[in-house]
Amino acid sequence: MRVLELILKKRDGGNLSAEEIGFLISEFNRGNIPDYQMSALLMAIYFQGLNARETTALTAALAESGEMLDFSSLGAIVADKHSSGGVGDKITLVLAPLVAAAGVPVAKISGRGLGFTGGTIDKLESIPGFSARLPVEKFMELVRENNLAIMAQTERLTPADGKLYALRDVTGTVENISLIAASIMSKKIAAGANAILLDVKMGKGAFIQNREEAFHLAETMVRIGKEMGRRVVSVVTDMNQPLGFAVGNALEIKEIMAVLNGQGPSDVEHLAVLLGGYLLALVGKVRNPEEGQEELSRLIKNGAALKKFKQMVISQGGRSECLEDLSLLPQAKFVEMIKAPKPGYLHDIDARKVGKVAALLGAGRFFKGDEIDYSVGVVLNHKVGDSVAAGDVLAHIHGNNEDTLKTAFKEISGAFSIGEEKSPGFPLVYGVVPPFPS
Amino acid sequence: MRVLELILKKRDGGNLSAEEIGFLISEFNRGNIPDYQMSALLMAIYFQGLNARETTALTAALAESGEMLDFSSLGAIVADKHSSGGVGDKITLVLAPLVAAAGVPVAKISGRGLGFTGGTIDKLESIPGFSARLPVEKFMELVRENNLAIMAQTERLTPADGKLYALRDVTGTVENISLIAASIMSKKIAAGANAILLDVKMGKGAFIQNREEAFHLAETMVRIGKEMGRRVVSVVTDMNQPLGFAVGNALEIKEIMAVLNGQGPSDVEHLAVLLGGYLLALVGKVRNPEEGQEELSRLIKNGAALKKFKQMVISQGGRSECLEDLSLLPQAKFVEMIKAPKPGYLHDIDARKVGKVAALLGAGRFFKGDEIDYSVGVVLNHKVGDSVAAGDVLAHIHGNNEDTLKTAFKEISGAFSIGEEKSPGFPLVYGVVPPFPS
Repeated sequence: MRVLELILKKRDGGNLSAEEIGFLISEFNRGNIPDYQMSALLMAIYFQGLNARETTALTAALAESGEMLDFSSLGAIVADKHSSGGVGDKITLVLAPLVAAAGVPVAKISGRGLGFTGGTIDKLESIPGFSARLPVEKFMELVRENNLAIMAQTERLTPADGKLYALRDVTGTVENISLIAASIMSKKIAAGANAILLDVKMGKGAFIQNREEAFHLAETMVRIGKEMGRRVVSVVTDMNQPLGFAVGNALEIKEIMAVLNGQGPSDVEHLAVLLGGYLLALVGKVRNPEEGQEELSRLIKNGAALKKFKQMVISQGGRSECLEDLSLLPQAKFVEMIKAPKPGYLHDIDARKVGKVAALLGAGRFFKGDEIDYSVGVVLNHKVGDSVAAGDVLAHIHGNNEDTLKTAFKEISGAFSIGEEKSPGFPLVYGVVPPFPS
Repeated sequence: MRVLELILKKRDGGNLSAEEIGFLISEFNRGNIPDYQMSALLMAIYFQGLNARETTALTAALAESGEMLDFSSLGAIVADKHSSGGVGDKITLVLAPLVAAAGVPVAKISGRGLGFTGGTIDKLESIPGFSARLPVEKFMELVRENNLAIMAQTERLTPADGKLYALRDVTGTVENISLIAASIMSKKIAAGANAILLDVKMGKGAFIQNREEAFHLAETMVRIGKEMGRRVVSVVTDMNQPLGFAVGNALEIKEIMAVLNGQGPSDVEHLAVLLGGYLLALVGKVRNPEEGQEELSRLIKNGAALKKFKQMVISQGGRSECLEDLSLLPQAKFVEMIKAPKPGYLHDIDARKVGKVAALLGAGRFFKGDEIDYSVGVVLNHKVGDSVAAGDVLAHIHGNNEDTLKTAFKEISGAFSIGEEKSPGFPLVYGVVPPFPS
């Protein structure tokens, strides 16, 4: 099979067979196909697209490029949850212990943050002692013992996806729904879960801002999952304003614990319970999502979810005293307030701008491998739709460097927009794919 | 300037500025832009195209990537001729001495053949002693002294074009008229001629088979030339059947000398005189192409063109006795005849098939750097339109290897098609761009 012929086939609008896609990915992974041919093929795919069969074949080829976890010895359906990424998106760290506390094993492999969206692993690593660099064997053992473990991505799983993504990132071939869906789903398939909840973020603070694209991605991933024998539900949710109030690693850990304690921002609790309810219904633990949501609310109230979270953190090396006394988590030296310049209603809190300010303060990475400052970030005081008086505090900025703090202060003002008329705010959820029950 | 931004700009249908194109080519040439980014950009160009300004800017950037010859000290307009490549296409080696004999300096830089089309340099190198590997200084000196020199492409001229073409060749990004036109024209611009005749071949034995594409290429190159201050005329000519009778290096040298002696196949003489007439008119040596054609016919009859050809060969090291006794040129060991299986009219002699058979015999290269057997090839006995009797010899096959000869014998049968009705044959010329005089 000659690579050039396959490039020409795709360039000219043809369809690649599963065998051809398998050849391309495995040879690329072995270093036998040069980057310059793969990037030309990726650009041809950008223009000509991949059909459903090709997308599934690509997912399978990427998943099979490395180790594939198998939880079948557990004798239970294992759950996984993925978010396409957003600002202040801490839902995984509320949902995972909730679902685990409900008796469903959760095996979660997460990435680190890049750009203006934060990563689940970075948030957890803000807890002193916590390690997400688990050997695969330890990860599987913890899922077996505690129903819950969270591991950082490893080269042992889907190595071809890592290489392909690195190439897409520098060749202008990221923004293609089939390539995005195959990349996400390959990681989920290799991670071994049978039931997968996908949270597709849409809005200013997400990489998808368009409703049609968001649903196209949601549907594509559900279809791939079905074709590969997994139970999958996708939910398209809002990412115009940040989720909750806290944006920044240790700041978000505090908010997560507040939510698990029944005292957190209602949007985070609602969304985690809503999505968790779908996941419980998907694995067959409950008859319908509503029943699941009731059960999860109960597990917040009775403290079981918080207990499960603490168990997970401590099992992975996190120091327990930091969870009892949150002031032991990393704290920034300076806290600045930003106040409302005029009275009115909050029409917008631009999630992308808030995310960029948090990254600027040190909470995120501009380049892979950048060091993160776990203590810094932004804590909002309001949600879109709230009324504010002139001089009301809109947010606190936590920073360790006075110059950066000044820049952050200037930048974040542009994130807030206050109008005279009442604003309806944003819905939390735009839709579920497939319409539940499927 | 970030390369990724420029890839995205082109991918999304934007236009690159001359400055951006200059940056891309010069940095690529210096090795500062990796192949994988350039190939992604090339594929984006394949889909989004380049407009007129971008194509001219690309031509200029490629030309300026290396040395640029300057013949202004000659005080005369220097002529150049280029063919997009065909089977049995020996027109350059008839036209160049003709035009030089008419008093117009001809400075010709040629490539070697690849695939089923032969290269001018390969034909010349079949003459023992001949060298096309001239230092640039020697090349310019010969043009000054003899009005004629032919040199092989060198890394010193348009090195970025060589690198870019090598990448296009393996990434499915060859077939784009703007890229093809810029590649050809950059070499012509760097080679320093002020008047350029472009022969765009169209038909089964050319890389362009479609009329619209051929004229698009012809027009694009004329426009680039004009924008860069050169006099350019493009002629779209037939390449459905081979030019002349001989296909193969030493075999073609014999045919060239026959033509220059007034005894060669009429299509070769006609086309060389026709194109040469345009070139004489273009440099202003004659008032119109017809006058130029008359002059060139006279220079064949009086032997001046043949004398000029011999002078050029000998000046570049070719052994003069080989030109006096053509049996001293490389000769193949075996000659096979292929005969007409039935009487009728020749409807087709498929140039591509004949070219492939010649290459198979050893006259061409399948890979860059392949050794060439100068003695082998095919000599046809007829042109399309001729009537043949059953058993008439259609062609002689010259080879040095009995097995290859057998395969060639089988393969070439498929090139001939004999019908009962008279065939009109093919026109020699499809059109001239711009319509002359411009």
